[in-house]
Order: sequence, then structure tokens, then C-alpha cells
Amino acid sequence: MNHSNISTAVLFGSGNVGTHLGRALAASGVKWLQVFSKTMENAAVLAHRLGAEPITEVEKADQKADLWLIAVSDEAIAPLVERLPPFKGIVAHTAGSISLEVLSKFNFSGVFYPFQTFSKEVKLNPVEIPVLIEGSDGETKQRLLFLARLISAQVIEASSKQRVWLHLTGVFSSNFANHLYALSEELLSRQNLPFNLLAPLIQETTRKALSMPPASAQTGPAVRNDRVILTKHLQMLSEDEKLQEIYRVLSNHILAFHGHGGGD
Amino acid sequence: MNHSNISTAVLFGSGNVGTHLGRALAASGVKWLQVFSKTMENAAVLAHRLGAEPITEVEKADQKADLWLIAVSDEAIAPLVERLPPFKGIVAHTAGSISLEVLSKFNFSGVFYPFQTFSKEVKLNPVEIPVLIEGSDGETKQRLLFLARLISAQVIEASSKQRVWLHLTGVFSSNFANHLYALSEELLSRQNLPFNLLAPLIQETTRKALSMPPASAQTGPAVRNDRVILTKHLQMLSEDEKLQEIYRVLSNHILAFHGHGGGD
Repeated sequence: MNHSNISTAVLFGSGNVGTHLGRALAASGVKWLQVFSKTMENAAVLAHRLGAEPITEVEKADQKADLWLIAVSDEAIAPLVERLPPFKGIVAHTAGSISLEVLSKFNFSGVFYPFQTFSKEVKLNPVEIPVLIEGSDGETKQRLLFLARLISAQVIEASSKQRVWLHLTGVFSSNFANHLYALSEELLSRQNLPFNLLAPLIQETTRKALSMPPASAQTGPAVRNDRVILTKHLQMLSEDEKLQEIYRVLSNHILAFHGHGGGD
Repeated sequence: MNHSNISTAVLFGSGNVGTHLGRALAASGVKWLQVFSKTMENAAVLAHRLGAEPITEVEKADQKADLWLIAVSDEAIAPLVERLPPFKGIVAHTAGSISLEVLSKFNFSGVFYPFQTFSKEVKLNPVEIPVLIEGSDGETKQRLLFLARLISAQVIEASSKQRVWLHLTGVFSSNFANHLYALSEELLSRQNLPFNLLAPLIQETTRKALSMPPASAQTGPAVRNDRVILTKHLQMLSEDEKLQEIYRVLSNHILAFHGHGGGD
């Protein structure tokens, strides 16, 4: 079916990442033999979609598979690995912030990390999702790289260290950015203004940041070194110390980043 | 040409906002009589495009115009207004964070605030840019609302207080979000990873935040109350106190916002 020498696999986990990768790899010719989940219902739902057998006991994991793919939550990986029986194929996990070492009990191990935020209800185009690959040895790495290239246009090799730093920048760029939107919605609702007023600005900001170096796209009072507006905004936020702190810390960092010396 | 009773106007300022509004209002039937700038070259370039006369002396501003539209930088508004001669028409400024009061020497004054980030090189579709309107009196407000509706699909009436809060949320949602992208690019480059790895994540985050309440779209270690990852990330940033502070302040705010109690 494909040329990665990985044609059969077992999927551990039935959450967002497991569902996404299960579907994408199936569409690229991987035959899912089994789907493991702690609850039969969850295992059965995804197994049915992938034409696989649902299992709830790790001991039953198919020894003839080429790959065991672990797509459970970060904190569930180590306990799961502990219970897994020996295996001659490749065992790979899908977590950004977990080192390859967690799989050291297996001869052939790797990481297959799709770098995106997944929701069950939203179908994303797999080809647009970067995949970061790490392997315990050259052969394993090559096989995982090949497998990843079947589903994604942006596959790169990355060490565990690079991967945790990428994950950290995802927190800054996605989780924190989204929280700034949530804060803004709350502040606007206090003024009886709708959040959708911000939509064109947010969209244009995103477009610009992805079409030039984001530092070059920077606008606003801090990069202009406009101390009048900065002081005014801090005063407006004086009744909410924590919001004021966010404003101060980020503005001071922009000032320093763009060579305007320290903040207040 | 249009029914706002504003058919002729003088534009003060030839920067990004002036250029954008000049073009958009011209396309909707406003006849620009003059473009003022401190330097003749800047005035001439935009005046030529708008079929107007360039001027560099405020005393020459056309008294027969229906509207004087002030699109200079925030700090230049008050000094310009001081030098402006008396005028019987409407005088409006375009600044988010400047009160209507700055125009109190005129009988009919208002604010015409297009809420977007403008770059000279990028042509935006005016209809998608929200415009916030304020007027010194009902008649002036109605005329400016009508004028704004000629170019934008999202025109709302907003007080000076609402406008400054909207501007503040723009700093959070646009300026700060962009800085988080800039920081991420720097962190990735230290790991020899390209910034475009983040592009699909940033795009999907933006799409989700604009398709549901952003607080409901929140993902990441803080909203999951994942103290292991939070601690690990803070340790990774221990050599850069200021980045660590940004991470701590934003994570603590997400923890509290989503009911997980305080941070470290």
C-alpha cells in the first residue's frame, strides 16, 4: 500500500490527535489493526471508523503490527508504556513535550508529532499540518519520515529538545494569543461592544505576521514608544491589577525588544 | 453623489489612515477639495491620487467644504486643531484614543474611527473595516453615520469612552498577539527551527477564536491545569527572566480565568 514498510499499525488513544492521525494515515494506506482505549465505548467508536478491532487491554496489542502509535494524553504515556508488553516493531508517541526516552524499553522507538490544535468537530486538511519526527536509530527515523510524508507537506526531523521548544512557542503563539482574545471579549462586553468588532483587526494581524517577520509587522503604542498612551492604558486598567500586569509586562518587553529602553 | 449631505471635504494628513479613508470615501462619491500635510511632497502625492489640491498651510483650508477630516497622528491632533481657523462645517478626527473634546472649539464635531491596522502597501476592503462614529450633536452624528455606511458594512455609534476601550482591546488582541509571534520566532530561530512551522497553528487558532467565544476555544497547559508542563516551561525560560515573567503572568491569568485557582 505504501513504501514506508509500515503497513499495519495499532492505535493507542481515541482522542483528538488519535482520531486525526487515525483517519489521515488510513487514507494514506495504513491498515489499522486495533484501537486501544481504556473504555470500550471510546475504543469501539474510533475502531469502527477505521475498520479496526477495539481493545481495552494492552496485553492484547497485535504483535504482528509494524507500528504501535501512542496518541494518549501526555501524563498517560509513561503509565501506558510501563504496561505495554515487549514489541519488535516501532513504537512511537505523538506528544510535543515528552522526550523520546520514555520509550527506551523498546528497541525501535520514535516520535510522530503533528503540530496543530485539534478539535473533534473540525476536520483539518492533514497535508497542511507540520509533522516532527524523531527516531531511536537511522532506520526507524527514515521509516517514520516516510510515513509522515504520506500525509503532510511539511515534515521535519527534530530532536526532543527542538520539539519541546516548538511546543513552548505554540503556547505563546496559540494559547496565550487566544487568551488575549478572551480578555478582550470580556473588556468589550463591559462596554457593551461586540467582540466581532475585533475580527477584521485580528485577521489582518494574523495575515501580516505570516507574510513578513512578525517583528517587522509590529504596531501599537509600545513599538512607537508612545508613553502617553501606555500610561493612559495602565491607568484605565488600574482597577484590575492582573490585567494591568499583563499590559505592563508585554509593553515593557515590546519596548525593550524594539530598542526603546525599559518601561515604567 | 451621496445622501449624507457631506459631498465635499478636506483631508488633513497623508499617512496610512488618511490614504485609506481618502480612497474609500472618494470611491463613495466624496469630492476631496484639498489634502493638507506639513510637507508639500506628502500632500502632493495623495492629493494627486484624490484629484485634490495639496496645501501645507492650515489657514488655506477650504471654508466651503462640508467636512474637515483630521487623519494625523494622535499627538499631532491637538496642535493642529489649535492652528485651524474657525469653520462652520463638521470637523471630525479619526483617532481611537483621542476624545471628541479635542474638537470642542468647533460647533459641529465628530469622530470617524476606522478600526483596523493599516499598511500603505496593503489594500484592504473598506467594507470589512468597522467604523465607530461619535458626534457633538444628533444631526452631526447622523451625517457621519450615513457617510460611514457608504464605505463600511459595520458602522456603530460609540462614545469616547467605548472607543478608548476598543482601542485598548486592539492592543491586547493585535499588538500583543503579534509580539507573541515575534518572540516565538526568536525562540525557534535559537533552535534552528523555521517560524513557518507555527503558521498552521496560528491560522487555526485565529479561525477558532472567531468562530466561537474565544474563552471556549482555549487550549494549552494552563486551561488544562497541567502543572507539570507549566513548571517545565518556566524552567526552560529560567535564563530569560523577562520571557519567564510573560509566561508566568499569562498562565496565571488563564488558570484564574478558567477557575483553577492561583498560579505559583
